[in-house]
Amino acid sequence: MSPPLARLHQTLPQLVLRTDEDSLRHYGQDWTRYYPPAPLAIAMPATVAEVQGIVRWAREHKVALVPSGGRTGLSGGAVAANGELVVSFERMNRIGSFDRIARTVQCEPGVVTAALQQYAADKGLCYPVDFASSGSSQIGGNIATNAGGIKVIRYGMTREWVAGLTVVTGAGELLELNRGLAKNNTGYDFRHLFIGSEGTLGFVVGATMRLTLPPAPQAVLLLALPALADVMRVFEVFREGITLSAFEFFSDQALGHVLARGHLPPPFEARAPFYVLLELDDPAHAGDATALKLFERCLEQGWVLDGVMSLSLQHARELWAYRESISESITPYTPYKNDIAVNISRVPAFIASLDALLAANYPDFEVIWYGHIGDGNLHINVLKPSALPLEAFRDACEQVNEQVFALVRDFGGSMSAEHGVGLLKRDYLSVSRSEQEIALMRSLKSAFDPDGIMNPGKLLV
Amino acid sequence: MSPPLARLHQTLPQLVLRTDEDSLRHYGQDWTRYYPPAPLAIAMPATVAEVQGIVRWAREHKVALVPSGGRTGLSGGAVAANGELVVSFERMNRIGSFDRIARTVQCEPGVVTAALQQYAADKGLCYPVDFASSGSSQIGGNIATNAGGIKVIRYGMTREWVAGLTVVTGAGELLELNRGLAKNNTGYDFRHLFIGSEGTLGFVVGATMRLTLPPAPQAVLLLALPALADVMRVFEVFREGITLSAFEFFSDQALGHVLARGHLPPPFEARAPFYVLLELDDPAHAGDATALKLFERCLEQGWVLDGVMSLSLQHARELWAYRESISESITPYTPYKNDIAVNISRVPAFIASLDALLAANYPDFEVIWYGHIGDGNLHINVLKPSALPLEAFRDACEQVNEQVFALVRDFGGSMSAEHGVGLLKRDYLSVSRSEQEIALMRSLKSAFDPDGIMNPGKLLV
Repeated sequence: MSPPLARLHQTLPQLVLRTDEDSLRHYGQDWTRYYPPAPLAIAMPATVAEVQGIVRWAREHKVALVPSGGRTGLSGGAVAANGELVVSFERMNRIGSFDRIARTVQCEPGVVTAALQQYAADKGLCYPVDFASSGSSQIGGNIATNAGGIKVIRYGMTREWVAGLTVVTGAGELLELNRGLAKNNTGYDFRHLFIGSEGTLGFVVGATMRLTLPPAPQAVLLLALPALADVMRVFEVFREGITLSAFEFFSDQALGHVLARGHLPPPFEARAPFYVLLELDDPAHAGDATALKLFERCLEQGWVLDGVMSLSLQHARELWAYRESISESITPYTPYKNDIAVNISRVPAFIASLDALLAANYPDFEVIWYGHIGDGNLHINVLKPSALPLEAFRDACEQVNEQVFALVRDFGGSMSAEHGVGLLKRDYLSVSRSEQEIALMRSLKSAFDPDGIMNPGKLLV
Repeated sequence: MSPPLARLHQTLPQLVLRTDEDSLRHYGQDWTRYYPPAPLAIAMPATVAEVQGIVRWAREHKVALVPSGGRTGLSGGAVAANGELVVSFERMNRIGSFDRIARTVQCEPGVVTAALQQYAADKGLCYPVDFASSGSSQIGGNIATNAGGIKVIRYGMTREWVAGLTVVTGAGELLELNRGLAKNNTGYDFRHLFIGSEGTLGFVVGATMRLTLPPAPQAVLLLALPALADVMRVFEVFREGITLSAFEFFSDQALGHVLARGHLPPPFEARAPFYVLLELDDPAHAGDATALKLFERCLEQGWVLDGVMSLSLQHARELWAYRESISESITPYTPYKNDIAVNISRVPAFIASLDALLAANYPDFEVIWYGHIGDGNLHINVLKPSALPLEAFRDACEQVNEQVFALVRDFGGSMSAEHGVGLLKRDYLSVSRSEQEIALMRSLKSAFDPDGIMNPGKLLV
């Protein structure tokens, strides 16, 4: 045990510390696999006091700290590759006092998203932020990355569901932010500053999360489209006529990979270049007839080739499965992931430019399009040809990346819609933020983290 | 014209400047009437470049700047009592490009709230943030104060409706914050930092505002209650059974003042100590029968004495009028206003303590209770006895204020739920924010406003 670590153990004898190889590897990385893990050790605090003790120790010994939740991030925000102390919150995973009137519940940061969802369901309520990694991701990490997911169009990002935050800053100070109040206009709202700050200002050590009534079972439509450009035409027709809780799209290549797994039958007799999945936000099903009319209008215009509407909850789940299985079905191809967003109304023009750019630059690679297009968010996955070595593939993708980001910049878009910046996109931050903004971000970080011990090198260089 | 002012005129010859007595008085104060206006002059920029020019000039000449919208604030945030240059945005009042797909519209800061509401209505949409001052308040001021209002329980505060912000910082830098994107996880969200910052970090010079589909006409219930403690019991019953878009309460004294104006008939045959107005969020009116059942349950429990449900849109508007007329009906009594909030579930205990405190301290004053109790927000208005001089009344109220705020602190509440801090509550900021938070607020202010020219003395001492 290194002298600083021995000192930490001496100061906080109850603190669980791990230094075995397996733990260092396991806790030193997230779902990115680009950075070899090399942490100093793993600390597993059980109390807020221990977290504060760790911060005091880190300031004294100039040791960098990496907050660690479920490590399901895709941008390297929770990677410890430079001798940092990883602070895992998995022992702080209690769901605390539930408030039925306010519809809030207190969570420790290590509560797994699915555990909160289940807790809410047991109370007859719902925690509606949902994504593929719900079974592993933790609330603290969701907050630190402002996690999004498949129902953002209806329920927003994690940000909307945080009524209060308890944080330990990089200076070791304990702050109670907003205290769970619905209304509180008393100066700068630091709660929103910490949400999405990727652990660079301090640790989330507690959160008051909002819950809501569970949605009634919703009708789902799956539509087959002749062209990418029609996706937004269809969106416009439905958006004007009815309230939507989801509007997802995917390409026929994406569907091909899903069908190849053999779990689902083809949704239509004939294949089509693109598909749209939309879910109505219509508790009383008063809009089902309207939805059919809107569908017919799209059909008449030639923007839709075929379509199916769910007839039961089970049927709706089956239709969702086409969209939800994509990510897993392409994982074996080591996809190079892009997570970009532009303003919704600029999506058609952006897609046209991006399509041309990718076609010109990836003649030999398979490009899989899908995404939460109802909020302007596209996931573009480039699949590695099996014969190509990983490194050559990555190099090729990174070159194209520069061009994709130049296009994002031209369209005033975001180079990270929901995955965050972390290590992976840190050098591209200027695509979405101005020089002045980045300088101000540095100033703010200094105010909360004067010694620069909080997740250094993530988000900001 | 003072030498600095002459220099401003020389630098920006097109900039409209006013120094006449009427303008100084008119633009130097808000709806608080405690601070004698004494601005240096009124500047009325027409462009962002002029705003930046004003900031450069102010930094050079060490002149304080006060942003000025509709000046409908109740905390003195827009008061200029110390030789500041008032920067009025009334010439920057254009509604710019509308985006039907994204459902957003660009606004200059001087757009009047009601003008945006009307614009949205003309497009078949709705800007749902609404309050008594909508006819005068401006979007820039709404954002700077994170204005709330009567539909917060359903639509949230102004914060929820700001998709993007353009600001000029106290350093004169122009920042484009979030660019109207629905999803953008690229570091600290300065947009949320500026919302509610009361002009202490910089000027809002443009905003991309979200619009939504207009709500279907909603059923409204007005209920008569035997006791204050029953208000939250009724809330709990309805909150669990049905979705609400408003839950307001008021005391019989409040109703008395409304009825005394002679515009409205008594709502019930017999008077009751308290009333609750609730609006259903139920587009298809599928819940009307449920609402009646919930009403009957409250009646059986003795928590409700009588009730009426709206039978038409016109009837619903008439029921709303009882609640909406309160503020105006008590204005002649120079009310001393408290705008406090606690966590919703703590409202009953808080009300009991507060009721006892006020009864003990205001034996001779009439205390009018009302508020958006569905989000924990109480407005307590103390009316001045006509014989008592204004100053003696104010002194008496300020003494009680200390005790009210001590109670708010004990309950972990907010000493300004929606009115903001400004000058009026600046010295009480520590009721709701810790010493460390206030120190961090100062650091952040320095980063955005290095010379301290932005609305100095407001929010922070």
